[in-house]
This record gives sequence, structure tokens and C-alpha cells, in this order.
Amino acid sequence: MDTSLIQLHTDQIQGGTKVEQSMCKPYHVGIFLFNEVEVLDFAGPFEVFSIAEAEPGVKGFQVHTVSADGEIIRARNGLQVQPQYSFAQLPELDLLIIPGGYGAEEIEIYKPDILNWIRGYAEAGVQIASVCTGALLLAEAGLLDGLRATTHWMDLKRLEEQYPAVEVQRGVKFVDQGWIVTSGGISAGIHMSLHMVGRYHGMEAAKLTAKRMEYDWEPESEASL
Amino acid sequence: MDTSLIQLHTDQIQGGTKVEQSMCKPYHVGIFLFNEVEVLDFAGPFEVFSIAEAEPGVKGFQVHTVSADGEIIRARNGLQVQPQYSFAQLPELDLLIIPGGYGAEEIEIYKPDILNWIRGYAEAGVQIASVCTGALLLAEAGLLDGLRATTHWMDLKRLEEQYPAVEVQRGVKFVDQGWIVTSGGISAGIHMSLHMVGRYHGMEAAKLTAKRMEYDWEPESEASL
Repeated sequence: MDTSLIQLHTDQIQGGTKVEQSMCKPYHVGIFLFNEVEVLDFAGPFEVFSIAEAEPGVKGFQVHTVSADGEIIRARNGLQVQPQYSFAQLPELDLLIIPGGYGAEEIEIYKPDILNWIRGYAEAGVQIASVCTGALLLAEAGLLDGLRATTHWMDLKRLEEQYPAVEVQRGVKFVDQGWIVTSGGISAGIHMSLHMVGRYHGMEAAKLTAKRMEYDWEPESEASL
Repeated sequence: MDTSLIQLHTDQIQGGTKVEQSMCKPYHVGIFLFNEVEVLDFAGPFEVFSIAEAEPGVKGFQVHTVSADGEIIRARNGLQVQPQYSFAQLPELDLLIIPGGYGAEEIEIYKPDILNWIRGYAEAGVQIASVCTGALLLAEAGLLDGLRATTHWMDLKRLEEQYPAVEVQRGVKFVDQGWIVTSGGISAGIHMSLHMVGRYHGMEAAKLTAKRMEYDWEPESEASL
């Protein structure tokens, strides 16, 4: 990606625009759905952001599901999900989640419209986070060039070989590069999401979310696998 | 539940009918969906059983989703899912999963038809496993009387007070009573499902499933929370 884009995001993070927002305002999270998306890749973040509270009784996030045309999608292994929105209808986002799975690796990655859609969010300064092989879509869109990133352990080699400008990280749950975050496979998306809850609403909110989910979680940054 | 029912299941487990089946035959898992079901309660087991392999390249389970009428359901926080089957259409099952969530706790529990449907599987000798407050449906159906069981930590007191014949267990991921298994809240359903993969296809298959999901899992029985 071009240097100006990195600078835009760096300014935003260093300027602390997120932190200045009211603690009580729910952030808008969009979760991209597509045919053959891995189920836990989207359902994990959906659960985390849906139940996370900014403070007791106050929702921390508004979660939206979106597919290109808004039509029902067939996730991996046959789970059919009706997204709330098409690209055109989607409300403004603070955070865009790109899950992985066979559909990301072998279908969406070859669609220029999808890559442009993701790129548009990056250019608009929206926080982006991938789960599993969702990182391949970010890499193909050129958004990981010059950055550290990770993906499902079975696809680390592909990420490394096809995108030599990406500094591939092994043995971590997620890699936080500020405005762009990538996570490891499937359930690592839950770790990454809890980490993001911590960023937006503080570590206590993240810990309470993990507790409510009965999810074993240590809030270390970029925990080892 | 009546003693003959417990005896039926005990005979089946001790007789080892499951173990005698070919390692390559996929077991049929039904996941009950209903309005306001907690998302990870069903999506966690769906992921585990969908990707678990009996042996390399051979699916260990065929996963079916089912709602009473087969119509689209609105899970907790607005995720809309189209089940594959209605009760009437559902193929024969080896294992029935009962997830929890607000819909289980406050809606399904008051429907005699739903409780009878679950009871029918118990009487037919089908393995049953609950996630989270799905245990309340099993308790209300009388299936947990005289047995040890658990649920989401926020609902342990309700299980204990409303169903004094149930021996409520605290601080465990799941409670395995052979033909009936109950698990703790939300992500504890992933632990329970991995445990069940181990029962049907061996511990190595369960470990490989956890590894593929990048899920931190120690295969101890009834692990502490």
C-alpha cells in the first residue's frame, strides 16, 4: 500500500481519535460474509463484539453482517446465514472484520470488486482486522505490504511465498499493526476480538467479555500459539 | 426420568455399540436452532463437528441444523440462520446438541412440544449434549433428574433452585454422564464437542481438530474452569 495511507492511519492512532470518543458510544463493527466462509471465523468475533459492554448494561459495539449483494450465503459445511446488509446498504463502520475459510482462499481473493471494497475502507481510515485466511484478502489487496502479519498455520507458507512484501509472523495468536490487525486460524479470531474490545473499551471490559463467554483468555499482546 | 430410560442408555454405552461402528462412518449430529439462541453455543459445536475427521480426509460427522418448523431463525443479537431441516424432515441422529441462550432460558423452556421432542430422542437412545443454558431445557424435560450436570456460571443457581433433583456441578467445563453431557457457558461447548469427538473417533482425532481450529485445549475430562 502507498505511504500516504500508512501515514493517514498512523496519524489517527497516534492522534488518539478512538480514545477521544465517548466510552458509551457503541462502535460499529461490520463482519464480511461470503460463500464458504469458515463458520467460527465470523461467529467468534460476532459473539465477542455482540456481548462486549462498554460499561455494565451498555453495549460496546453494534455488530452488522454484510455480503456483497445482501443475499443469503452458504458458509463452510453448509451453514446458511442471511446477512443484514449488502455493501450498498451497510452503515458507516469503525471496524471491518474479514474472516477466512475456503471461500476467502479460493473464491473472494479472485474478485477485484471485493478487494476494492476492502481497500476502500482502508483508505477511509477504518480499522481492519482479519481472521485466519482473511489475511490473504488483505495481502492480495496490497494492504499488508511492509507490515507484519499472520494467518492460519496451514497457510503461513502461502502468505509468505505469494506476498514477499509481507513480514509473516509465526506462533502468535494475532499481530497488531495498529490500524490493521491479522489473526491466526479460526479460534484465534476470538483472541483478536477480545484484544480489540480491550483497545476500544479497556482491558476490564475485555476480561468481563471473556468471563461471560467462559473463554480461557490471557490478555497478553500477540500471545504465542 | 424413569429408571428404564437410564438402563437403556447404560446398556448401550457399556455394550459399546458406538465403538463397534466402523471408524469411517460419519455420525449424524443434529444442532437445534431457535430464536435467540446464543451464537457461539451452536457455532462452536458446528465448527468442531464439521471439521473433525475420523481419519485423514474422512469426515467424522455429518452436521445437520434443525428448527421446529425449518424456517429461518433469528439468533441472539440478530444473526439470521436458515436451518437445513424442520423436526419432521431431520434425518436419524446419533447425537443431538441443545444450545442455550436467552431463547432457551425464556422461550423454548415454556414449550411442551419442544421438551417432548427432546425427550423423544432420549427415549430413542440418542446421545444428547447441551451447551450453556441448553441444560435448562434438559432439566425441564426431566432428563437430568438424579444426574450430575452443569450450565453457564450465571445460571447455576437457577438450575439448582428450580431442579432440586439435579446434582449441579460448579467449576467444570462439562459434565459427562455417558448418554447425556452438559457443558458450561458459551465457549465451554467447544470443549465439550472436542471431548465428544474423542469419544467417537479417539483422542488423536480430537487433538487434530483442536489444532486445526488453533483452539487451546487440554483433553482432560471435565476440566476445571
